[in-house]
Amino acid sequence: MDVYEAIFSRRDIRKFRPDLLPEEVLHRILRAAHHAPSVGFMQPWDFILVRDRATRERVKAIFDRENARAAERYTGERRRLYDSLKLEGILDSPLNVCVTCDRSRGGAVLGRNTILETDLFSTCCAIQNLWLAARAEGVGVGWVSILDHAEIAAMFGLPPTVLPVAYLCLGYPESFPEEPMLRTVHWRERLPLEDVVFAERYGRPAFAAGTRPAGP
Amino acid sequence: MDVYEAIFSRRDIRKFRPDLLPEEVLHRILRAAHHAPSVGFMQPWDFILVRDRATRERVKAIFDRENARAAERYTGERRRLYDSLKLEGILDSPLNVCVTCDRSRGGAVLGRNTILETDLFSTCCAIQNLWLAARAEGVGVGWVSILDHAEIAAMFGLPPTVLPVAYLCLGYPESFPEEPMLRTVHWRERLPLEDVVFAERYGRPAFAAGTRPAGP
Repeated sequence: MDVYEAIFSRRDIRKFRPDLLPEEVLHRILRAAHHAPSVGFMQPWDFILVRDRATRERVKAIFDRENARAAERYTGERRRLYDSLKLEGILDSPLNVCVTCDRSRGGAVLGRNTILETDLFSTCCAIQNLWLAARAEGVGVGWVSILDHAEIAAMFGLPPTVLPVAYLCLGYPESFPEEPMLRTVHWRERLPLEDVVFAERYGRPAFAAGTRPAGP
Repeated sequence: MDVYEAIFSRRDIRKFRPDLLPEEVLHRILRAAHHAPSVGFMQPWDFILVRDRATRERVKAIFDRENARAAERYTGERRRLYDSLKLEGILDSPLNVCVTCDRSRGGAVLGRNTILETDLFSTCCAIQNLWLAARAEGVGVGWVSILDHAEIAAMFGLPPTVLPVAYLCLGYPESFPEEPMLRTVHWRERLPLEDVVFAERYGRPAFAAGTRPAGP
């Protein structure tokens, strides 16, 4: 699949079919993740494959508790909409992947001097590689961002230097929707590209509205 | 270009030809970045296009000072190797892009409850989209990770809620090397994939060495 096609048709998936991923498909996706850029070639990421149902049920329980707390931030119509959204596919997907970052890997890392978060940032680049490779394979990925990372760290036996970065659900999706779900339900709209591109200084528009070539 | 080809042939580029990027190429790359996943569809990123030579010279001065400090961590042969490495292309590349994250965008963001870093992580996914789209366009990207972000924030007039995440150099490269430069000079080797994939718990190997399907 073409890079642009993968980028524009990638979605956060929460509805999965139960079919397992073939081992060679999973390997290709993980290899793509592992070929992400990393500061000082640190490769700080690890991928914990989680298939065990009991483990996924424990993660789902953490999600349920944290999500109940998150819902309290909304009231009225917004709250009703929030409660109607499906925000995870922990048990529906046949495979969960906990992506971690080993902050101590390789000792003194070239380029990781003044900006210590660069190892976390590298790990996120690996996650995006994984997501796009999965899309090319017809595999859906959902990032569960409503969790308690301290509990996740304890559950999976992470050493003190290793942090959870993402908890992902992988599987064949019911569909790849045309638009992000939160846009479809008008939770939030896509920002015009012109609004997020500046020239030379923050806040100085780089493109006059309407002058850019037509999308996508 | 195929997703996997872009992922495996993407490199951190520090040697650029002076040719400018055509506007439509730049637009396609930025649009790809803007179509990254983001927590709660927050789209927290902004992209500051930096072409002004005087500005790039100020950034280069920050790099030079921070890099001199970074070099002091190495001695002997390792220090000689470090000093020989070209780690940025700030002035050689025709375009620098400062990628930032607005931590306050959109108020209470769905899914950004317990894990506050998710907005930074979303911004990194946008950076990886940008990097892969650029690769497909034959455009090189280098991430300058040796800087002082507080100074960068002041230089570009970032509001208090907006953090610098990456300072990138974009342009047509002299070449896309076969391997990461740090691997070529044996600064650090690529980890075997088996070493970073676990099953069910941290540290429990998911694949026996040698059992995985061959490359790429």
